[in-house]
Amino acid sequence: MQKVKCILSYDGTDFHGFARQRNLRTVQGEVERVMQSLWGCAVETFGASRTDSGVHARCQALHFVLPSDRIPVTQLPYILRHWLPQDIVLVSAIPVGSRFHARHDALWKQYRYTIDTALAPDIFARRFALHERRPLDLESMRTAAAQLEGEHDFTSFCAARAEQVSKVRTVYAISLSVGDNQQLYIDIAGNGFLHNMVRVIVGTLLQVGLGVRAPGTMTEVLARRDRRAAGFTAPAHGLCLTHIAYPALD
Amino acid sequence: MQKVKCILSYDGTDFHGFARQRNLRTVQGEVERVMQSLWGCAVETFGASRTDSGVHARCQALHFVLPSDRIPVTQLPYILRHWLPQDIVLVSAIPVGSRFHARHDALWKQYRYTIDTALAPDIFARRFALHERRPLDLESMRTAAAQLEGEHDFTSFCAARAEQVSKVRTVYAISLSVGDNQQLYIDIAGNGFLHNMVRVIVGTLLQVGLGVRAPGTMTEVLARRDRRAAGFTAPAHGLCLTHIAYPALD
Repeated sequence: MQKVKCILSYDGTDFHGFARQRNLRTVQGEVERVMQSLWGCAVETFGASRTDSGVHARCQALHFVLPSDRIPVTQLPYILRHWLPQDIVLVSAIPVGSRFHARHDALWKQYRYTIDTALAPDIFARRFALHERRPLDLESMRTAAAQLEGEHDFTSFCAARAEQVSKVRTVYAISLSVGDNQQLYIDIAGNGFLHNMVRVIVGTLLQVGLGVRAPGTMTEVLARRDRRAAGFTAPAHGLCLTHIAYPALD
Repeated sequence: MQKVKCILSYDGTDFHGFARQRNLRTVQGEVERVMQSLWGCAVETFGASRTDSGVHARCQALHFVLPSDRIPVTQLPYILRHWLPQDIVLVSAIPVGSRFHARHDALWKQYRYTIDTALAPDIFARRFALHERRPLDLESMRTAAAQLEGEHDFTSFCAARAEQVSKVRTVYAISLSVGDNQQLYIDIAGNGFLHNMVRVIVGTLLQVGLGVRAPGTMTEVLARRDRRAAGFTAPAHGLCLTHIAYPALD
């Protein structure tokens, strides 16, 4: 039994999220459909992160058991790239040990939220960035973001319908940086994320940046453990899964 | 009579080019349709460049006569942005003199062709970059590009069906640079461009970069004055109109 770990990138615009759902176009559904037609049998894949509808990924990870050795693992990226739809790219495929699990073995993950702060929206960023032309106070946003770093109960930053029992997560770092064409990047790394957590953090940071909330707000929002204490959920299209770290051995 | 100069950017993917055509979705057609519904009368616009089907623009220029002073020119970008489709952004609108003409007054233009040279295509660049994973010899490409700078008869680099009588144009500069995520940018500035000229130049440069043509090829291709002497026409989706220069007075 040969297990394979794949890295995928996708433009989430036209998907109902990563995880397979009956009768809806999902990333996992498309990947499994192509694999089934390639090998002539059902292939079950296991993804590292269940990204939501409209959320993008530069490096989603998944694993599956290779149904046959007809196609060498090294050739898989070239062959699958040919068959996958245009909005999914198989970046790499490597053989891994039989105990590898894309979700359980993930050490930490990083998401990037992109905000286009130009006066007129950048046409080339419209699918991947939230446009906000009102001036943002980055220093206040950085002050607020720093309060979220570390281990906290993130109940306030989690969709009410989230299923996870424990709401305690560790945010390793939140950094704000400005890139080309006045894009503001909010990079968040942590050991795990609750449903909508990054988007609620970004929505709340935006309120700080716009002066609607004080820079010291986050400590109080965390303590409230109530979704209503935080800000709005930033739209999905600005969010991208950018990194998943694994132990070096695979 | 108040003339207005507008700067537009657009994602050319879903347009049959810039210039209006009956029964086809074009950038000019969409802009005029929105203007007609805004002012309740037909508005004729004049664009600086007729970009082809699938070609993008960061700064297309156009002018038109304001049908009424009901909407101040300064407010036009905000109002038109609201009504224009998602793949067109009105970047700016300024009043200009009555003799201004977007096409006739243009001093020079710049186009950028983007090539994604990463082994696996960048999912976020797929609409705006040609993917070429074979190694490219940039020094040979630069040597070839330099032979095109200056005033030349560009018949060899022009679609056979091009309508322009004189095929003499001046290329001010061709520069190759490498950006984020292994993107190769080919920037071409000149006083005017024949139909498909940039795309044929890029196709020929790619053949040089791949070693199919010698770096010294361009001088001979120019001298032949025959489209068949040059390389293939690079696909439209990698091309973007990036700058149009006008005299400072407007």
